[in-house]
Amino acid sequence: MNLPSIYFNSWSEKYRRPFGAIQAGKSVYFSIAVNLTKIWRVDLVIQKDGDSSQELEMFPNGEDAHIYKLKFVTEGKSGLYFYHFKLDCEDGQTGRRTIFYAKAGDNYGGEGQIIYDPAAVEQYQITCYDHPDQAPQWYLHGVVYQIFVDRFNNGNRHHAVYSPKKNSFLYATEEDDPYYIHDQKGNIARWDFFGGNLQGIIDKLPYLRSLGVTVLYLSPIFEARSNHKYDTANYEKIDPMFGNKQTLQKLIVKTRKLGMHILLDGVFNHVGADSIYFNRFKTYGEGGAYNNTRSPYFDWFTFHSFPDNYTSWWNIEDLPTVDKNNTHYRDYIYQSDQSIIHLWTNMGIGGWRLDVADELPDDFIAGIRRALDSHSNKTERKVLIGEVWEDASNKIAYGKRHHYLEGGMLHGVMNYPFRSLIIGLLNQRMTAAQAVRASFTLKSNYPTYAFNANMNNIGTHDTERILTTLGGDENKLRVAVQLLMTLPGVPCVYYGDEAGLYGGKDPNNRRFFPWGRENVKIQEIFRSAIRCRRNDENLQSGDYLPFSIGELFGFVRFRSENAYTAIVFNVTPDQQAIDLEAFNDQTGEGKMAALVGSLFENGMTLSPYNFLLKEKQP
Amino acid sequence: MNLPSIYFNSWSEKYRRPFGAIQAGKSVYFSIAVNLTKIWRVDLVIQKDGDSSQELEMFPNGEDAHIYKLKFVTEGKSGLYFYHFKLDCEDGQTGRRTIFYAKAGDNYGGEGQIIYDPAAVEQYQITCYDHPDQAPQWYLHGVVYQIFVDRFNNGNRHHAVYSPKKNSFLYATEEDDPYYIHDQKGNIARWDFFGGNLQGIIDKLPYLRSLGVTVLYLSPIFEARSNHKYDTANYEKIDPMFGNKQTLQKLIVKTRKLGMHILLDGVFNHVGADSIYFNRFKTYGEGGAYNNTRSPYFDWFTFHSFPDNYTSWWNIEDLPTVDKNNTHYRDYIYQSDQSIIHLWTNMGIGGWRLDVADELPDDFIAGIRRALDSHSNKTERKVLIGEVWEDASNKIAYGKRHHYLEGGMLHGVMNYPFRSLIIGLLNQRMTAAQAVRASFTLKSNYPTYAFNANMNNIGTHDTERILTTLGGDENKLRVAVQLLMTLPGVPCVYYGDEAGLYGGKDPNNRRFFPWGRENVKIQEIFRSAIRCRRNDENLQSGDYLPFSIGELFGFVRFRSENAYTAIVFNVTPDQQAIDLEAFNDQTGEGKMAALVGSLFENGMTLSPYNFLLKEKQP
Repeated sequence: MNLPSIYFNSWSEKYRRPFGAIQAGKSVYFSIAVNLTKIWRVDLVIQKDGDSSQELEMFPNGEDAHIYKLKFVTEGKSGLYFYHFKLDCEDGQTGRRTIFYAKAGDNYGGEGQIIYDPAAVEQYQITCYDHPDQAPQWYLHGVVYQIFVDRFNNGNRHHAVYSPKKNSFLYATEEDDPYYIHDQKGNIARWDFFGGNLQGIIDKLPYLRSLGVTVLYLSPIFEARSNHKYDTANYEKIDPMFGNKQTLQKLIVKTRKLGMHILLDGVFNHVGADSIYFNRFKTYGEGGAYNNTRSPYFDWFTFHSFPDNYTSWWNIEDLPTVDKNNTHYRDYIYQSDQSIIHLWTNMGIGGWRLDVADELPDDFIAGIRRALDSHSNKTERKVLIGEVWEDASNKIAYGKRHHYLEGGMLHGVMNYPFRSLIIGLLNQRMTAAQAVRASFTLKSNYPTYAFNANMNNIGTHDTERILTTLGGDENKLRVAVQLLMTLPGVPCVYYGDEAGLYGGKDPNNRRFFPWGRENVKIQEIFRSAIRCRRNDENLQSGDYLPFSIGELFGFVRFRSENAYTAIVFNVTPDQQAIDLEAFNDQTGEGKMAALVGSLFENGMTLSPYNFLLKEKQP
Repeated sequence: MNLPSIYFNSWSEKYRRPFGAIQAGKSVYFSIAVNLTKIWRVDLVIQKDGDSSQELEMFPNGEDAHIYKLKFVTEGKSGLYFYHFKLDCEDGQTGRRTIFYAKAGDNYGGEGQIIYDPAAVEQYQITCYDHPDQAPQWYLHGVVYQIFVDRFNNGNRHHAVYSPKKNSFLYATEEDDPYYIHDQKGNIARWDFFGGNLQGIIDKLPYLRSLGVTVLYLSPIFEARSNHKYDTANYEKIDPMFGNKQTLQKLIVKTRKLGMHILLDGVFNHVGADSIYFNRFKTYGEGGAYNNTRSPYFDWFTFHSFPDNYTSWWNIEDLPTVDKNNTHYRDYIYQSDQSIIHLWTNMGIGGWRLDVADELPDDFIAGIRRALDSHSNKTERKVLIGEVWEDASNKIAYGKRHHYLEGGMLHGVMNYPFRSLIIGLLNQRMTAAQAVRASFTLKSNYPTYAFNANMNNIGTHDTERILTTLGGDENKLRVAVQLLMTLPGVPCVYYGDEAGLYGGKDPNNRRFFPWGRENVKIQEIFRSAIRCRRNDENLQSGDYLPFSIGELFGFVRFRSENAYTAIVFNVTPDQQAIDLEAFNDQTGEGKMAALVGSLFENGMTLSPYNFLLKEKQP
């Protein structure tokens, strides 16, 4: 094997120690192997996010003269560092020149590449967190179930719909295909409802418990005109179609008795145009920002020209954006004693999921978190999860870097990148090796506590149903569900996926739960995978060490030499034989090669869309 | 007063005797007054509809040498005659020439005009009927109430909707505004239902009785996909949302106990594409004309190219037209012992209203009538009414003259011309004199038995609501309702008009009945006008003798010297004084002038939108 002339691997402790995100103020030890004709100077080029970069000279001060080293002490303040290497050298092909070593072309971390054009340099990342900000144990060990309330279950007698909204439509049967009723301009002309409600969830708690889920994440439940309720009309009131405070209290009490928790969806970036705050349609009397510049809510909104031209979410006029820097709004949402966060958290919910977290200022999120923490006590802590679609460790939104996961803000985010990975593998748009690199990148960018607190999914109310994405293939589905239940992070099941619901994007991903028409085979796939996770502490808290063996993807969830679970997936339509020679963990070290080799016999075969799991418990 | 040089008036018995339609084979006596310099010849130019015309010379064979006369014996076969007069003369202005006397420029009958251009001649009409074909007395003396079943009342417990159709929408509340759910092409994407049903009608019988109505004309009740049910899916089955045969039986038994009758809406021109007969969407198994050229229903339809190109009503693909000349179809609808007409008439209904009668061949309608008559007996006869929008005495549809009212077919038609007259008067687009002429024309064209059997309306499911048409003016509405209840023909109230429902054309004319929110003032307008009619035999069977007094419109409903009712309407926004000098009945005779003068004092005033009624009962 030809050693490359320059080598660095951000995932190998030989080159970058310690692994991954570190607490601010801690040191990082860098090493880079350089085998060149002549070397004048090797620099670590590093910059604190937003600052200018420094060039720090590295020296071969160890046993091996080819290994240049540097100890870098991070600032005492959380944030990101970005780095690469710069070499003043002769490489034997040309004369003296400046070359670079930086992240590989696929934009993942790990092993990098030599770069000649400084403009082409993609930098490595170091995430520095303020303090280890671990999510509550009940959450970390849980299995979440996402309920789109209107579509789950109607607990009214004879499935009557109570308190229906004037000039809206109700589906004739719970088997109907969801349908948006648009006017000629493409706007929603009438909202459509199936009639799911909180009592319906209460009625199905025995089912949910038997499925094995422990946390219920509910789509927004506050009064709103739409069926999804992301257009809040009144934060202080449960939508009357869903129930009232008493129903919620009953749900909370019943879930707690079963050891289950409720997460509420907090939609604080915008409200509904049809709300007590904005009141565009005068549904709520004469007041509201739209109607009166002296409304107490007027300053919450940004009018370019009163009253019809105002800032709204994605320019959807129905969703006027709230100014999150407005003191009165902050008081209302989280700061005051009677704030919305206090009001509902007081009732005993387990925490919140923050809608469109990207649109919320960091200090707004931190404020919510402080309010939430004030409800935590020795026996129970609250959790705060955010909706972020990308790698949340370095997300820039609206020109600003967010620091969701560096301590004191979110415990974790919705893990859409893992969804992409699972689907990419099964639909053969991502190789096993790429999946290792993609997941390793996330693991190294996210603080460990956050990586383990991400809410993983294979589908939500904002995506296609997994069964549809996988072309209706139940074998693929089984692999996807097993991946969801064994990858690090907290798995979240989208209601009805376990019953065989299919459907493309909104609205077809929001069919009513097919009570009495469940796909029993698929239900058993979910039950069994959830059971697998919940009975295996390794899967809940073990370190994540991914690898590929040719086209096979796998990982070890490692707690100790006496406690680990290893799993290998055949994500292909062909039978695959294990060839341990092809083992690759992308660290250049093969740390888990021996262990995996001891668990999975060389040459043994995996049938198409199948997996093998081996566990060792203490 | 200068006498015109030539004068004829088809409404005056002095010039045309007897008045109006006559039985085939009877004679008509024509007279025309001619005061010209020199006359060579006067002809009655007359033709049987479809035949060539004859010129019959008239002679001044009476006391008055200026009156030319002719006795014309009609053929023994029903049908229409058209006539005008032709004169070979010198009129003192030019030399000898041919001139004509024909219908006036407004195309009404009555007094005519001299015409010089033969191409400009508009002919007078004589309707010859086969036999006096009088409608049943219960109908002629009744007041009809049209119910759009889905929109009237929901008799289910808690207004639940039973048997809703998959992939349809239910209105959230009964106060909702109706809304068509269109796809991007403008087709109905989902049908919308309020949930009215037959039990709902049963529950409201006490209300209907107290309102004074005696006949309920129901929109179609057979199974169909839409809310209006003009797209029949199965003629043999009540739509399950509406109820079943037992519910209909209950409704019939209860109405009969109250002396009320039910009219069903017979939609026989087309069926629904989604039907057991056509079955385009395979809702009804594998059979149906669309799916199989060997289907027993295949020959009912006209395929230009099987299966997607077929004849349909107004090219609406959802409504494939049935070939009414198909023997099997005729057997199915009326001819066989188990026919649809027999099946439902047997249950005890009072009769049928035929949808789009224009599209049905005359012998098809006659066949239905024969089937219906076989259910008539001494104690009760059945009624057959047709949907025709224009003057039904001479309607040509698809190039063919129809003979609806000449005996053995329809008893009467829906009287949209009277609706136009009432609205025209109140919205000042028609003068009182024009209204006299318009209604006299209908009276003279229709056989008397049919004129009295027309189902009059001021609004139906196919028009704007009367309140909207009248700009919400309740004073105008009172006049319109009084006109509806006093004009000849059988008045029909469109459900909800009496409760103050408003709305433009479909779908806004199909709001749900506002139970509990009725406009009590309007309700009293209807109640009182219905009471007025039902308590006055003159209004139910009296001859109709219209007149104008300046801008005032009025008529006498005359049974005998001892039984008549006269009514004068001020249809204007101004106070009007009665000036008997201005009395005009368009016959040139003023037959009722003295009577009217004795009832209404000269100089007395009528306030805006008001009326005065005087009656004499034997």
